[in-house]
Amino acid sequence: MPSVYNWPVRVYYEDTDAGGIVYHANYLKFFERGRTEFLRALGIEQQALIDAGHTAFVVRSMTLDYRAAARLDDELCIRTSVAKVGGASVQFLQEAWRGEVLLNSANVKIGCVDVRTTRPRSLPDDVAAKMRAA
Amino acid sequence: MPSVYNWPVRVYYEDTDAGGIVYHANYLKFFERGRTEFLRALGIEQQALIDAGHTAFVVRSMTLDYRAAARLDDELCIRTSVAKVGGASVQFLQEAWRGEVLLNSANVKIGCVDVRTTRPRSLPDDVAAKMRAA
Amino acid sequence: MPSVYNWPVRVYYEDTDAGGIVYHANYLKFFERGRTEFLRALGIEQQALIDAGHTAFVVRSMTLDYRAAARLDDELCIRTSVAKVGGASVQFLQEAWRGEVLLNSANVKIGCVDVRTTRPRSLPDDVAAKMRAA
Amino acid sequence: MPSVYNWPVRVYYEDTDAGGIVYHANYLKFFERGRTEFLRALGIEQQALIDAGHTAFVVRSMTLDYRAAARLDDELCIRTSVAKVGGASVQFLQEAWRGEVLLNSANVKIGCVDVRTTRPRSLPDDVAAKMRAA
Repeated sequence: MPSVYNWPVRVYYEDTDAGGIVYHANYLKFFERGRTEFLRALGIEQQALIDAGHTAFVVRSMTLDYRAAARLDDELCIRTSVAKVGGASVQFLQEAWRGEVLLNSANVKIGCVDVRTTRPRSLPDDVAAKMRAA
Repeated sequence: MPSVYNWPVRVYYEDTDAGGIVYHANYLKFFERGRTEFLRALGIEQQALIDAGHTAFVVRSMTLDYRAAARLDDELCIRTSVAKVGGASVQFLQEAWRGEVLLNSANVKIGCVDVRTTRPRSLPDDVAAKMRAA
Repeated sequence: MPSVYNWPVRVYYEDTDAGGIVYHANYLKFFERGRTEFLRALGIEQQALIDAGHTAFVVRSMTLDYRAAARLDDELCIRTSVAKVGGASVQFLQEAWRGEVLLNSANVKIGCVDVRTTRPRSLPDDVAAKMRAA
Repeated sequence: MPSVYNWPVRVYYEDTDAGGIVYHANYLKFFERGRTEFLRALGIEQQALIDAGHTAFVVRSMTLDYRAAARLDDELCIRTSVAKVGGASVQFLQEAWRGEVLLNSANVKIGCVDVRTTRPRSLPDDVAAKMRAA
């Protein structure tokens, strides 16, 4: 698997706002789709993690740099790579591109929680191993 | 408690789309806020229902009639009343108004499910009784 | 082009709610993606319609029948067909399927507006012709 | 007007995800509601800015620190203050609290654009003056 994972995203009406551009919060949805598909490519399904051990990923922190706007019907590419794998967290670098134009870049730190309590827990071993291999 | 329950909703950027108006799906969010606050006024808290017995409400069917558009910064009023209470479902009539202008009207049928299985179950007795009284 | 247009949709965290299932309003987003891709397959781009003549589609009315729930990571298929083309509106039949399970069916009537005023206008001739041919 | 502006937010089903908590992107909506109401308290209406001069605010950059999770029915308080007013941008400090618990803190830099072109432009003079006074 390549070290940067690409996932296409199309902009629909649901993603835009009255400014005529993609609403700023919706890039976080696009980035999560990118992380989810990156995990899926590694063989990690999140509903299966909830069902098997009540484990879910949550975002711990994030920095976002908005450089250019996307509009209705645009085709974007979400680029995702792993920056660091810790015991209970993973750091991702993510970017949204439209062709040769970088629209948005993000540093995202995620952690694991028990969905019954929302308390932190360690990454499952196989998840951590697969992410380190990526 | 009056037979029609009013709840104010303000339109923010998050609610609009590139057409410059409130995105059509977002009226369903406004209507759910109206139903939730109607229930809360009756003393019914939905997270408490999940915690106590794994019971959640889901929408069974809905008809929507869009008459006029709302825009950024508009102040809306969501009007909610109970049309019929059955053993496992409740029918609501709901309307979104901006001043004297009716924007949207909806018939909404909700039912109960077990959140662990998403299977239907009867309305809790106290919930049904409170809704009938309304 | 076949009379029923299929479009795949994957369920992400953004689509779900605390009931553990797809939030009911989000099917409207899925259905709009289906209509948008159906239009695109006919050569109709919505941002181009806004740019060329300030024309946008809006939903006039809708009926929704929720039959079964979708969950995180589910793969859905949105099926879209045209039921009727009028002078200023188009009626669609749409369904959301997960494999052999029908989750949701909808009748959707859309119309055109001028995005500067949100007032109704006729369907552009070429748009109407392409939809009638479908 | 006090230097920190408080705005209440209630958590509805629409805000939650299958992890049973508020979906991480939705805090950005809450923070934007807080900024919008802060602006409104200063006499600045955003739809009026679009109508008068095609001016809209966009997010330039953001850092987010997620400390604790919110759940369905929670009552949050969004705290907003201005950190710095520049010629074409404003920096805000924002926090989401549930009672005595800090859930999320954010640094948000916004700028102005022309909604017809999405190109940057200076803050309108009266907007800048009102924000500096705050």
